[in-house]
Amino acid sequence: MSNDFQPLGLNPWPRFASIATFMRLPHIPLDDPRAKDLDIALVGVPFDQGVTNRTGPRHGPRQIREQSSIIRRFHRVHNLSPFEHANCADIGDTPVNPADLHDAMDRITGHIAKMKAMGIRPLSAGGDHLISLPILRALAKDGPVGMVHFDSHTDLYDEYFGGFKYTHGTPFRRAIEEGLLDPKRIIQIGIRGTMYSSDDHQWGLDNGVRMVFIEEFFEKGADAVIKEARRVVGDGKTYLSFDVDGVDPTYTPGTGTPEIGGYTPADAQRMLRGLLGVNFIGADVVEVSPPFDATGGTALVAANLMFEILCLMAAGPGKRKAVR
Amino acid sequence: MSNDFQPLGLNPWPRFASIATFMRLPHIPLDDPRAKDLDIALVGVPFDQGVTNRTGPRHGPRQIREQSSIIRRFHRVHNLSPFEHANCADIGDTPVNPADLHDAMDRITGHIAKMKAMGIRPLSAGGDHLISLPILRALAKDGPVGMVHFDSHTDLYDEYFGGFKYTHGTPFRRAIEEGLLDPKRIIQIGIRGTMYSSDDHQWGLDNGVRMVFIEEFFEKGADAVIKEARRVVGDGKTYLSFDVDGVDPTYTPGTGTPEIGGYTPADAQRMLRGLLGVNFIGADVVEVSPPFDATGGTALVAANLMFEILCLMAAGPGKRKAVR
Amino acid sequence: MSNDFQPLGLNPWPRFASIATFMRLPHIPLDDPRAKDLDIALVGVPFDQGVTNRTGPRHGPRQIREQSSIIRRFHRVHNLSPFEHANCADIGDTPVNPADLHDAMDRITGHIAKMKAMGIRPLSAGGDHLISLPILRALAKDGPVGMVHFDSHTDLYDEYFGGFKYTHGTPFRRAIEEGLLDPKRIIQIGIRGTMYSSDDHQWGLDNGVRMVFIEEFFEKGADAVIKEARRVVGDGKTYLSFDVDGVDPTYTPGTGTPEIGGYTPADAQRMLRGLLGVNFIGADVVEVSPPFDATGGTALVAANLMFEILCLMAAGPGKRKAVR
Amino acid sequence: MSNDFQPLGLNPWPRFASIATFMRLPHIPLDDPRAKDLDIALVGVPFDQGVTNRTGPRHGPRQIREQSSIIRRFHRVHNLSPFEHANCADIGDTPVNPADLHDAMDRITGHIAKMKAMGIRPLSAGGDHLISLPILRALAKDGPVGMVHFDSHTDLYDEYFGGFKYTHGTPFRRAIEEGLLDPKRIIQIGIRGTMYSSDDHQWGLDNGVRMVFIEEFFEKGADAVIKEARRVVGDGKTYLSFDVDGVDPTYTPGTGTPEIGGYTPADAQRMLRGLLGVNFIGADVVEVSPPFDATGGTALVAANLMFEILCLMAAGPGKRKAVR
Amino acid sequence: MSNDFQPLGLNPWPRFASIATFMRLPHIPLDDPRAKDLDIALVGVPFDQGVTNRTGPRHGPRQIREQSSIIRRFHRVHNLSPFEHANCADIGDTPVNPADLHDAMDRITGHIAKMKAMGIRPLSAGGDHLISLPILRALAKDGPVGMVHFDSHTDLYDEYFGGFKYTHGTPFRRAIEEGLLDPKRIIQIGIRGTMYSSDDHQWGLDNGVRMVFIEEFFEKGADAVIKEARRVVGDGKTYLSFDVDGVDPTYTPGTGTPEIGGYTPADAQRMLRGLLGVNFIGADVVEVSPPFDATGGTALVAANLMFEILCLMAAGPGKRKAVR
Amino acid sequence: MSNDFQPLGLNPWPRFASIATFMRLPHIPLDDPRAKDLDIALVGVPFDQGVTNRTGPRHGPRQIREQSSIIRRFHRVHNLSPFEHANCADIGDTPVNPADLHDAMDRITGHIAKMKAMGIRPLSAGGDHLISLPILRALAKDGPVGMVHFDSHTDLYDEYFGGFKYTHGTPFRRAIEEGLLDPKRIIQIGIRGTMYSSDDHQWGLDNGVRMVFIEEFFEKGADAVIKEARRVVGDGKTYLSFDVDGVDPTYTPGTGTPEIGGYTPADAQRMLRGLLGVNFIGADVVEVSPPFDATGGTALVAANLMFEILCLMAAGPGKRKAVR
Repeated sequence: MSNDFQPLGLNPWPRFASIATFMRLPHIPLDDPRAKDLDIALVGVPFDQGVTNRTGPRHGPRQIREQSSIIRRFHRVHNLSPFEHANCADIGDTPVNPADLHDAMDRITGHIAKMKAMGIRPLSAGGDHLISLPILRALAKDGPVGMVHFDSHTDLYDEYFGGFKYTHGTPFRRAIEEGLLDPKRIIQIGIRGTMYSSDDHQWGLDNGVRMVFIEEFFEKGADAVIKEARRVVGDGKTYLSFDVDGVDPTYTPGTGTPEIGGYTPADAQRMLRGLLGVNFIGADVVEVSPPFDATGGTALVAANLMFEILCLMAAGPGKRKAVR
Repeated sequence: MSNDFQPLGLNPWPRFASIATFMRLPHIPLDDPRAKDLDIALVGVPFDQGVTNRTGPRHGPRQIREQSSIIRRFHRVHNLSPFEHANCADIGDTPVNPADLHDAMDRITGHIAKMKAMGIRPLSAGGDHLISLPILRALAKDGPVGMVHFDSHTDLYDEYFGGFKYTHGTPFRRAIEEGLLDPKRIIQIGIRGTMYSSDDHQWGLDNGVRMVFIEEFFEKGADAVIKEARRVVGDGKTYLSFDVDGVDPTYTPGTGTPEIGGYTPADAQRMLRGLLGVNFIGADVVEVSPPFDATGGTALVAANLMFEILCLMAAGPGKRKAVR
Repeated sequence: MSNDFQPLGLNPWPRFASIATFMRLPHIPLDDPRAKDLDIALVGVPFDQGVTNRTGPRHGPRQIREQSSIIRRFHRVHNLSPFEHANCADIGDTPVNPADLHDAMDRITGHIAKMKAMGIRPLSAGGDHLISLPILRALAKDGPVGMVHFDSHTDLYDEYFGGFKYTHGTPFRRAIEEGLLDPKRIIQIGIRGTMYSSDDHQWGLDNGVRMVFIEEFFEKGADAVIKEARRVVGDGKTYLSFDVDGVDPTYTPGTGTPEIGGYTPADAQRMLRGLLGVNFIGADVVEVSPPFDATGGTALVAANLMFEILCLMAAGPGKRKAVR
Repeated sequence: MSNDFQPLGLNPWPRFASIATFMRLPHIPLDDPRAKDLDIALVGVPFDQGVTNRTGPRHGPRQIREQSSIIRRFHRVHNLSPFEHANCADIGDTPVNPADLHDAMDRITGHIAKMKAMGIRPLSAGGDHLISLPILRALAKDGPVGMVHFDSHTDLYDEYFGGFKYTHGTPFRRAIEEGLLDPKRIIQIGIRGTMYSSDDHQWGLDNGVRMVFIEEFFEKGADAVIKEARRVVGDGKTYLSFDVDGVDPTYTPGTGTPEIGGYTPADAQRMLRGLLGVNFIGADVVEVSPPFDATGGTALVAANLMFEILCLMAAGPGKRKAVR
Repeated sequence: MSNDFQPLGLNPWPRFASIATFMRLPHIPLDDPRAKDLDIALVGVPFDQGVTNRTGPRHGPRQIREQSSIIRRFHRVHNLSPFEHANCADIGDTPVNPADLHDAMDRITGHIAKMKAMGIRPLSAGGDHLISLPILRALAKDGPVGMVHFDSHTDLYDEYFGGFKYTHGTPFRRAIEEGLLDPKRIIQIGIRGTMYSSDDHQWGLDNGVRMVFIEEFFEKGADAVIKEARRVVGDGKTYLSFDVDGVDPTYTPGTGTPEIGGYTPADAQRMLRGLLGVNFIGADVVEVSPPFDATGGTALVAANLMFEILCLMAAGPGKRKAVR
Repeated sequence: MSNDFQPLGLNPWPRFASIATFMRLPHIPLDDPRAKDLDIALVGVPFDQGVTNRTGPRHGPRQIREQSSIIRRFHRVHNLSPFEHANCADIGDTPVNPADLHDAMDRITGHIAKMKAMGIRPLSAGGDHLISLPILRALAKDGPVGMVHFDSHTDLYDEYFGGFKYTHGTPFRRAIEEGLLDPKRIIQIGIRGTMYSSDDHQWGLDNGVRMVFIEEFFEKGADAVIKEARRVVGDGKTYLSFDVDGVDPTYTPGTGTPEIGGYTPADAQRMLRGLLGVNFIGADVVEVSPPFDATGGTALVAANLMFEILCLMAAGPGKRKAVR
């Protein structure tokens, strides 16, 4: 491992010191010569034009960076440091365009495509959930991938506001239609909340999506749900998408569409740890909306979940180890 | 179902748009001609003169309205939309009088009595817990009713501050004394916290109130507790009173007398869902104090619990269905 | 004056009680039969797709409604009650579309055009400053109008993010280009802040816009500036646009592009009072972003400024009276 | 001066350390033997049953105590330390009764009367403005006194909510009616805001109250206004009442009835300093409502104003010195 | 029991009234004659010079005092009132010195030593976790004691920032080295979070410390863990140290080094209740950092945990009773 | 000018996007080869071990970076862009050591000395005011310099807490004693607030320091004060130190020792603009304490003041131009 890709040490820069990057990693933009050696890039996607209710996820990447200063290098339960298995860096944010939704999505796709061409897997910090669509357009253009999806919503709606197809409630409907996701290899964990209708659920179920409603989660527990997730996605290429509103909103109040009655961050950690060895080609943590969080706790949860996911991505496919 | 009583659609008014009413229902004051067709009225009671510690519940109804914009029309677990079973509206707030406690209570009783005379069942948003007394004076003047009471406190104290009989710690003592509640048909769920003495507990137990202390809840679980609740209240007329301080205060910090170590909103949802079919003549959700909440999360919980209760009230007595 | 258009009385609904509408006015949507008698409509425009920096003005109208509960009916300095001179109501929000900027603008234009056809003058609560463009498309389609514009920015930029023409930094450039505003009858008061370049200033000055930089304001004072404003706009049809970031951001922190060193709300009140008698065909107060305000103070200022403007609109053209 | 009445030293208890009392003074309840030697008592009046809009001043005394830790012992402009001229202490709070408005007022009167009998002058921290009435009932029962009154409201209303005579909008009407205040020796400084009607103003003016509207303050300045105040109150016994909503609400957001466009704390300091030598028999600072303040700034202003007033009270009548 | 050591009654001073002391106990400094009769002293230690990340625990004691006003006198589950078993008081804060870490530690040791000499057991409110070291220097100078330690971190690091030995990450390494703690009688409950390395864990395990990682807690539950704790500490002299970051940070956001995925306050209460009868010579609750808490909830949890611990200390060694 | 030293453009990274550096400048650590070409370095000093009251300035540099994203490149009043006159960058933070005050100061001195040796002038963002001492130890070791000092306190105290010489109340006493500052070339602007005693004032005056108390400022105005400042510091080497508590705390609530009654940010801007042409060898903006700021407004003011100062430093000595 090169020293170029290690987090900043505690001495002489304590956690509160220096510029805030993801997990205190060096900032290496894609046009930096060192970027060609990257394995995994932590990248911000400051986009919230897909939001249908409360705004703010454009401010998510910065607050996650700030809160991620507390992340240290070693994962006790997995007994590994991701920074020893993979060259990692904060590559900054993707280009965006707050004045045009479709141009913004194209800019995101372009940047992720460039990363893919360089052999870099993205771990993205949103941004609203619509960002998963332009990311998948870059990552899965060669064929559909599977997905482990943590969320309180299916994000499988067809349209909003009278025929508009692109919001944070529709990305995975679009991704399935565009052949980016294989619906039979999708599992959605934590679905709950009041509903407009049952259309999104029915469309998903009709297409083979496995939905784990919150009641099933509470009944069977994290380990059984993750066993099912591993069955659904199998060994193929898989994307991981974590909407922080999957977690109960007392832990993640800084989000736009909170639904009470979710799982805890400890549950989320246990589930993510159970996914060690899945073949993740990329991942995102989305819907962190700092203006609606009074303490930064949402971003703290997001930063920790990103570290959990980074460990999975750094360990790579095929590894398997029981959660302690 | 008339269209007069349906929530505002998402198009062209997204959740953040338009005037905030409970669950985006139309505002139909009692003197509006449409009011005569109402089955259930969502009503605010902006009263906090009964508070003995931190103030603020007078501001509760407005913040619950604001947060309730996220409530959609369909309940997945019950597989029903309350708006298809009952004509519902936001009728505004009851009259109050912040300059005189007893006049304020009389105004509340008067307004609820008018609703009762029109055949409208109230689902009230408090306001401090003393509001249950003037509400019950209107609803139960023909004879005592039962009550499912979620709370960390019994609210069965006799007096405060040297002989004063009307505070948010005394409403159910008064209601039993006035013959509005049948103590043998009362169950209180979640009782906990440090105590002045054991007088209120003893008085309640002596009169036949069934208290489920939080330790019993944690030991037996939501389903067993609700089975007991159904046994206690039976098929008779029953009131439901939900003090948000029954829930652990990390979920509901915006309240005046928080007691750590409570149940979760998910527990509360499961318990409420288990009450389908109970004969509810009215209900309230109380003690939401916005000035002590930094994110609106307390009102978000309250709004969701109101929707759970609305489903129970709309489905009506006699229905029974297992929680999924 | 009909009683249909009067604010809710204090008894029995104190300021904190009942549903929050602008200044406690009745909610009369355009399709309500009473709407045909309206003179002035207070209307929300919950739109923030033009924002280039911090988000949130979509939440502005609701918080202004909430804070406007403190507005009473009588203006001491003008010695008038606007509600006795004009039929006023809260007509709710214009339609919007958070998923499509241009469709949203068209919906806003359509709604304002409908009001204009009914003879109703709009006093709008934004929303970001781009809303002035669709509003002017409705109000000024018959020919350019003048404008008194309070702001720290000129909003005369040509484009953002590589050729994109519609943001909250461009509305008045577009409005001048589209023939909706007569640049020689525009005065901009309070311009300040760091700059990308001097292009926007130069374009405005070249086209005859009168810019009162903050230094001129501090030197000459409110009365002289308003005398100049009256000279610039004259007796013709005039629009009033008040961006709350014209005020110093300690008073209005809840805004997206704060610039330190502005005037006070007292200054703003004095300037607005000095505009009595100008022929205002409509007005807006914009850029209130509640998620960035910790106390609601920004919306409190906005609500009070709306009342000042309402008095001007209700008094009508031609009146003139010295500020006490 | 006895050491019994000195503020806690900085060593070894820095400003943030130890129990929060007013200005770090010793806590000496009235039944403590040392109390008989007190000249001036700082006393909390945690009462807010007179509030007609936003609640919370019951929490004022504690937050003022907390913020007052920053007050040091020496006033540079007056060149005096109040603690060298008068025996001062924090005597705790007056008794109150949140369950009964009139009993609470009686308890306050009783406690202040006891102080008066002991020769102690009270400097009270409210609490809402209605507390001035029970305080004056104790202090002025021997005959009417004058008053310097800083406020945005006259508090001369007759009744609220249909005939109710005791709210924070009526104390001085009652006090004049009860012969506690001589209206011709009252000056009110900073009056402004929207109005229900002009009744309260007219009643006050008819009775000889001198009202300095905010426009007069801005025009003439602090020194001229205070010269007028000295003329109005003369050499007789005088009460000082400072409602923090007299100050512009950006400085004092934590208050229940904020009115934009007020004076600054620097203006208030200058005015108070100009009152040196007036014969103050007591004073209060009221309407600090911590739940509506995000930073404690309102209480910080209140604590500093209390120190200004304490200097006036400690220096005693007859002194006169120009403000530097 | 003397009345000198009882909490302030509710009448006529409601919970929000009067000066904030711990649990409304009288303030009795060590030099007060009544102090010689004290059994247990609640004492603040406003020190945060050991903090390595976010600052603020110096402000902890005051906010815990404020929040502890809600604590009443009687513990229902233990069926005891600590104030009937032991003379208790708030003795104020220990001396500190924010300008010199070592002098500050010496001052703390000196003050606790004085208490020990007077036969008073301390229940301290921190302050950061380094305060446990100077406290133990006073309490355990006669020989090592055992410890029940609730925390997410071991606080067994050797040094920080290049050889610096005294931070809140090192107190128990130092205490073991100094012979103040017997490592074989230490149990640490709730250890989790990302790590710099495994050095601190290994050093502790090598020395015989019993670490209960959070996974073991979740697997075995509170009762089993406490049974193990009782086995580890046995009947000997024992200290109890509760770092609020042992609790999940959604309950205790106001802390400097939050680690997601912890236990709940209800879990903590159950564990503490299970320790009845252990021979506690002192205790602390640390790392409450008010500036990072938006609602005071962290201090509310801390105050309640202090009451649980006070019951253990008041009941004394040898008692045993099952948790209800 | 090299492109290496230009702020990030708005396209495709809007103000909210990408990693937060000071004014969106590139991050160029001192060991980066580009650093040798730097003229001015923006540098954070995350140190708060000198704080005697409320903590938190260690978190200042990051929040100033975040808020400085709004700073654009061009200064309208000076008609200059500092980035065209000097090579500027964010060099990150100086080393610090939260576990040892003196080691931390040495690390700061060492880093600034390295910059000086490279010919780079520092514009530092604190940190508490004690940082000025180690900075001056590096910058002025060749002989005393002058200083323009904006503050509400003189920071000329001799010691705290019983003989401790290094706190944020003592830096300039030490700097004068160490021969780093020429007291006759120091001007302090805005001094006010309650006082322990008059010792610090007397010592300063005795040594020739020019103190502009706030009363003098209000009387003479910004222009006269700055004229005096230019007279005091003359043409020699001068340091500029701006404590944000010089500004009135409603604008800068996020600070540890707020004193009401200060000047406005507009006043501060006007004063700073008047210093064009002074020979500044370095500068700092200190005492920004984010945990005590609810909206980030303090850091917003600080970021804007840093830009004003950067313009002065970039323009260089000898220039003179009237403020518009």
